[in-house]
Amino acid sequence: MPSRHDHSGTKPNRGELDLIRYIRQRTARAGSRALTLGIGDDCALLRPRPGHELAITTDLTIAGVHFRLDWHTPESAGHRALARGLSDLAAMGAHPVAAFLSLGLPREFANPKGPWPKSWAARFLDGLLKLAAVHNAPLAGGDLSETPVPLADIALIGSVPAGKAMLRSTARPGHLLYVTGTLGGGAASLPHLDRLAKQHQSRSSDSKPFRVPKELGPLLARHLSPQPRIAQGLFLRQRALATAAIDLSDGLSTDLTHLCEESCVAAEIDPSLLPIHSGASLHYALHGGDDYELLFTAAPEAHVPRKIAGVPITRIGRILQARGNRPTITLLTAQGPEPLKPQGWEHFS
Amino acid sequence: MPSRHDHSGTKPNRGELDLIRYIRQRTARAGSRALTLGIGDDCALLRPRPGHELAITTDLTIAGVHFRLDWHTPESAGHRALARGLSDLAAMGAHPVAAFLSLGLPREFANPKGPWPKSWAARFLDGLLKLAAVHNAPLAGGDLSETPVPLADIALIGSVPAGKAMLRSTARPGHLLYVTGTLGGGAASLPHLDRLAKQHQSRSSDSKPFRVPKELGPLLARHLSPQPRIAQGLFLRQRALATAAIDLSDGLSTDLTHLCEESCVAAEIDPSLLPIHSGASLHYALHGGDDYELLFTAAPEAHVPRKIAGVPITRIGRILQARGNRPTITLLTAQGPEPLKPQGWEHFS
Repeated sequence: MPSRHDHSGTKPNRGELDLIRYIRQRTARAGSRALTLGIGDDCALLRPRPGHELAITTDLTIAGVHFRLDWHTPESAGHRALARGLSDLAAMGAHPVAAFLSLGLPREFANPKGPWPKSWAARFLDGLLKLAAVHNAPLAGGDLSETPVPLADIALIGSVPAGKAMLRSTARPGHLLYVTGTLGGGAASLPHLDRLAKQHQSRSSDSKPFRVPKELGPLLARHLSPQPRIAQGLFLRQRALATAAIDLSDGLSTDLTHLCEESCVAAEIDPSLLPIHSGASLHYALHGGDDYELLFTAAPEAHVPRKIAGVPITRIGRILQARGNRPTITLLTAQGPEPLKPQGWEHFS
Repeated sequence: MPSRHDHSGTKPNRGELDLIRYIRQRTARAGSRALTLGIGDDCALLRPRPGHELAITTDLTIAGVHFRLDWHTPESAGHRALARGLSDLAAMGAHPVAAFLSLGLPREFANPKGPWPKSWAARFLDGLLKLAAVHNAPLAGGDLSETPVPLADIALIGSVPAGKAMLRSTARPGHLLYVTGTLGGGAASLPHLDRLAKQHQSRSSDSKPFRVPKELGPLLARHLSPQPRIAQGLFLRQRALATAAIDLSDGLSTDLTHLCEESCVAAEIDPSLLPIHSGASLHYALHGGDDYELLFTAAPEAHVPRKIAGVPITRIGRILQARGNRPTITLLTAQGPEPLKPQGWEHFS
């Protein structure tokens, strides 16, 4: 399709159609065998693999709620928007097949005064498409709209052999409880980001994000560019190791409560076993969100490896029968068992 | 799953989990054979019909852009949010299979002071779920977030026999151009809605939508509760009548330009043939958006019925070869042929 404008320069008055053309150019090389029709028609078309089910999830990301324009680079916002949905696919043990992006932008973000490649919209797409390429999740469609603040809703489509997806509802008493990677790093980044943003603002008149000091890089990367555990989810599902799974997006206490409620079971956690991220606290490991690790259960006789695709796997507790007077989650502290209430993020409350 | 709160009363401090429970209750009875797992896990699971492809589309709706809190009832906003995506499925000739809703709400919309069933959120869901039930599009998942203004992104999944979807890119010179229903009613409603809202505001202190006068009901319904042409799309696809199709969401001049560009053809329209909605003008019929009719092409020898499922079908022009000096769309006026530029809605420009 001929392009009305040059996209590499500083042409003003960039409209919706130009932005769609730019996205089509950027995504033209990407693709997956399942995707038979991508951007450009009323719908995209996917041809599922015979004998497979599709796993579908949507995740809304909005400036001021899920990210901050003065904390997150556009690339980080784009990466995080896609990582949320990829993490949901990982929890089911699904292969990514396609991503759909509904993107809302204030006019000056889509139609910048300066060069287009440095615009917020182009850099957001950079971050998103880089992570999409890593996980073979081609951008297959979506919608664009002018909005008062930047926002993105991502629909992700994955593929999993029929009847084989890992679920939240299949944990059974006696099964052991595991997590991938480390916990608490996502939340422990927030006070640093707050401090760095305030220091930056006191020195600079612009509202752009600051540079991350080198020594804080590993910790802040947990929040700024979380790595969805697609490979680990696939491994667990392909070897039928996990009896149930969920991703840790709202915090261990909240997400384990979801898993227990859906499975009609209880759980106990040994806090001394938790793989707390360097620089994080027990509180952050229990209640902090944004870790995007997998929480899963396995039968006691299962041979769960210590690492999957380079990421450590740690046993943190076990599943119990639900009983009337038993808390949903018990924390085995040095002072004895204590009920653990979900304290993760909840909107509107 | 036990519910922590009573949803029928006026319990305050309604949080995200309560809203999810309410939506699960409302959607528990709905379902489709293809949907093997609905709300409650990290992803929903869909089992596609053998030999079928999935058609997928997302549509973002945001207060102040796609609807106005002082023009649209919450039910109308919910209906319109879903109608946009259903209309995309209709254009492909796809059966609806499932809908996903990412819903953003200001706190007071999700957690009202008054009774919950009269809240903006509950009434928005009423409008959306009523239309979803008509078209067998069960709500299978989504996301919730607190946002500064109400917004909804809908991902719709449809099913179509592999290789049989109607496309934008397959119109050929000599094919005739048709539309379903009438044109211009959606846009012709806007000045009435503006006037009625101003009259209402001068008489009333609240910012709620006004009542629609009976005589304006049929016209304003075109904007407030558009009916996606699912049955007509299925008919055209099943009988292989349409050689190409697109839905009219941005206006005839804009959407026909899309179809011509994707098919590498041109088109001519006879304005005297246009089925202009009562109360609308030729300008609204050519450029007004929000009609959600289907625009399609058919071979000259095809027997296109005058009505499909009760909706009139009208021939409005034909497809021409694209040529260097020929405009993409030519309007055959009484004064002779004139180029017709796309003048529909474009964000950011």
